[in-house]
Amino acid sequence: MKGFSDRLGEVKEYYFSKKLKEVQKLRESGRPIINMGIGSPDLPPDPSVIEALKSTADSPSGHGYQSYQGIPALRNAIAAFYDKNYGVSLDPTSEVLPLMGSKEGIMHISMAFLNEGDEVLVPNPGYPTYTSVTKLLNAIPVYYSLNEDDNWEPDWKALAQMDLSKVKLMWVNYPHMPTGAKGSESLFKKLVDFAKTHNILLVHDNPYSFILNEEPKSLLEISGAKDHALELNSLSKTFNIPGWRVGMLAGRSDYLDAVLRVKSNMDSGMFLGIQEGAVAALKLDSTWISSMNKIYARRKALVLKMAKLLQLDVQEDAVGLFVWGKVPDDKTATEIVDQLLYEYDIFITPGLIFGSKGASYVRFSLCIGEDKINEAITRLKNYITP
Amino acid sequence: MKGFSDRLGEVKEYYFSKKLKEVQKLRESGRPIINMGIGSPDLPPDPSVIEALKSTADSPSGHGYQSYQGIPALRNAIAAFYDKNYGVSLDPTSEVLPLMGSKEGIMHISMAFLNEGDEVLVPNPGYPTYTSVTKLLNAIPVYYSLNEDDNWEPDWKALAQMDLSKVKLMWVNYPHMPTGAKGSESLFKKLVDFAKTHNILLVHDNPYSFILNEEPKSLLEISGAKDHALELNSLSKTFNIPGWRVGMLAGRSDYLDAVLRVKSNMDSGMFLGIQEGAVAALKLDSTWISSMNKIYARRKALVLKMAKLLQLDVQEDAVGLFVWGKVPDDKTATEIVDQLLYEYDIFITPGLIFGSKGASYVRFSLCIGEDKINEAITRLKNYITP
Repeated sequence: MKGFSDRLGEVKEYYFSKKLKEVQKLRESGRPIINMGIGSPDLPPDPSVIEALKSTADSPSGHGYQSYQGIPALRNAIAAFYDKNYGVSLDPTSEVLPLMGSKEGIMHISMAFLNEGDEVLVPNPGYPTYTSVTKLLNAIPVYYSLNEDDNWEPDWKALAQMDLSKVKLMWVNYPHMPTGAKGSESLFKKLVDFAKTHNILLVHDNPYSFILNEEPKSLLEISGAKDHALELNSLSKTFNIPGWRVGMLAGRSDYLDAVLRVKSNMDSGMFLGIQEGAVAALKLDSTWISSMNKIYARRKALVLKMAKLLQLDVQEDAVGLFVWGKVPDDKTATEIVDQLLYEYDIFITPGLIFGSKGASYVRFSLCIGEDKINEAITRLKNYITP
Repeated sequence: MKGFSDRLGEVKEYYFSKKLKEVQKLRESGRPIINMGIGSPDLPPDPSVIEALKSTADSPSGHGYQSYQGIPALRNAIAAFYDKNYGVSLDPTSEVLPLMGSKEGIMHISMAFLNEGDEVLVPNPGYPTYTSVTKLLNAIPVYYSLNEDDNWEPDWKALAQMDLSKVKLMWVNYPHMPTGAKGSESLFKKLVDFAKTHNILLVHDNPYSFILNEEPKSLLEISGAKDHALELNSLSKTFNIPGWRVGMLAGRSDYLDAVLRVKSNMDSGMFLGIQEGAVAALKLDSTWISSMNKIYARRKALVLKMAKLLQLDVQEDAVGLFVWGKVPDDKTATEIVDQLLYEYDIFITPGLIFGSKGASYVRFSLCIGEDKINEAITRLKNYITP
């Protein structure tokens, strides 16, 4: 064997993959770990979603290979969902591509648009997969800063001073993970203008728009956006089916064709039962989202209490599935994360894994029951910083 | 937007993706198409498999993100299956990696081992995805011929004359698709020796070993194979769950670690219900396989009749899910395929899509009921070659 690929040196095992193994080991050793690290909705999906999966599984013809483009019912349901919730009109035959999770879409899009050596604008802080996929393709991540003082919007002044000639693609994500910054119509307009001016493909990753957010937005709402932007979306957080792996890509048909050409050469279509379940989810009325948000709101109130005990500085009106807090100036986030894990059996995520601009922060997931958050609060009653 | 990636120019939309759209359109226009093109088992899985999926779906905790490595029960079941059926011992914690279909494994393995410009030995004829994945990574497919006269084993003389210094990886696949050649222990030994001599990583793709084959074999049975070979396997064909996407990679732990590092950065774990279903499938006893093979044997007898009507030359003792037939010398396979599709509403696959060495052949899938094959025979009663 002549060795591994060079790209392998560029990526580590995905952080959660390693860290969760450690948490799992602690748990197996008998430690009562409260895991507030990962944004995997803990509540089940609506019964109609499960029922659609089960009845498809009972059909003798439900087990074969599926089309790479997904069943028409799913593409129609996605288009209807975009129309109803964002006021964005999409042609279900050509402007919608179901994906086995939006995470895989990051790779498929990158493969369709990037050559080795191309530069990619990646938010700092931001979702680590934008970086790792870019590196896996030997393209070059170029970080653009998001600052708390600008409500975690891009640092436009710094961007204006960058040499953008080699930048081909830009990842954006609002509501933003991990900070929970909501974004706005004016921000989305600026982003589309920026992409147009610099001839960059904007890819908006939009899985959090319905969580604790009164104003869900799609970047594709902006006039002219389709010529410069694609949007990834996901059913994972909105409909409590992260493990099912259902995402989607929306945008111009020729861009989607390119992504499909990559995708059809490296995987196969999505299990029919999962597609039918996704259709059922997308058809749920708005009471589903509001009932989930009531639960998340109660959890968030408790996590904010917990953050107070830890003396964190939190922007309380942020949206999404996480609480993001700044640690006191004389501490490091890693110290606090390790202290919580090893002394209090509580796992939270250090902000550093989202980039250097996250180094003074920690992230709490709201995907955990109130009883457990209360238990964490109890454990932290007499908390003293490390 | 600064254009698509160069790699995109290297691959077309996957053949079945395009062709099945055409077949679908003909069907929608009212044409009674009999599709013998694709190897997607039409029969349902065992009820215990469906039941495992359904009961997991009913569990409130069955919907979250899963570990990248799969649940221990699935890795244990895979290891036990390899032990029982092939006599191959695998450590379930480190030598087994569940995949969402073995097709995706072709990409993950290639990304873990190949740099741009590396050469890859690809069988001709063979599964087109070996070529397209290689090209998507800007590596170079180098074809090695399989000849009918050598029972579709590699042309060792030709291989000996090749410059193999840049070859990093070699795809092999026995029982072979599309020809149905079975392979043998002596062939597997030769392959491992070859890989060792030339310092090449052998990757054996083994999804057909239980279909109409009395002697299922794993390449990993060969002494010393683990140091030079990985093996992909799949539940799709054996257990009638192609649409579920369950495959696996077996082999040395450091090689699997490298693949996991790629995989964990580009997708997420497999839906728990599907994993539990896969566990149930792997635990079925041998009567499952023998009962499926009785059905396939009856279908094959009918397809052989059909091949006779078409004056094809068929190696009747081939194994696997397909019948592979040589067209008469004065015809081309494409002529016959098009004639069958447009005049008789029967879709079969032209051998050319598996490489130049398949150009004089056509492939029939056995994934179609006897009634339909009989109907095809009836339509061909007065068949005259084009």
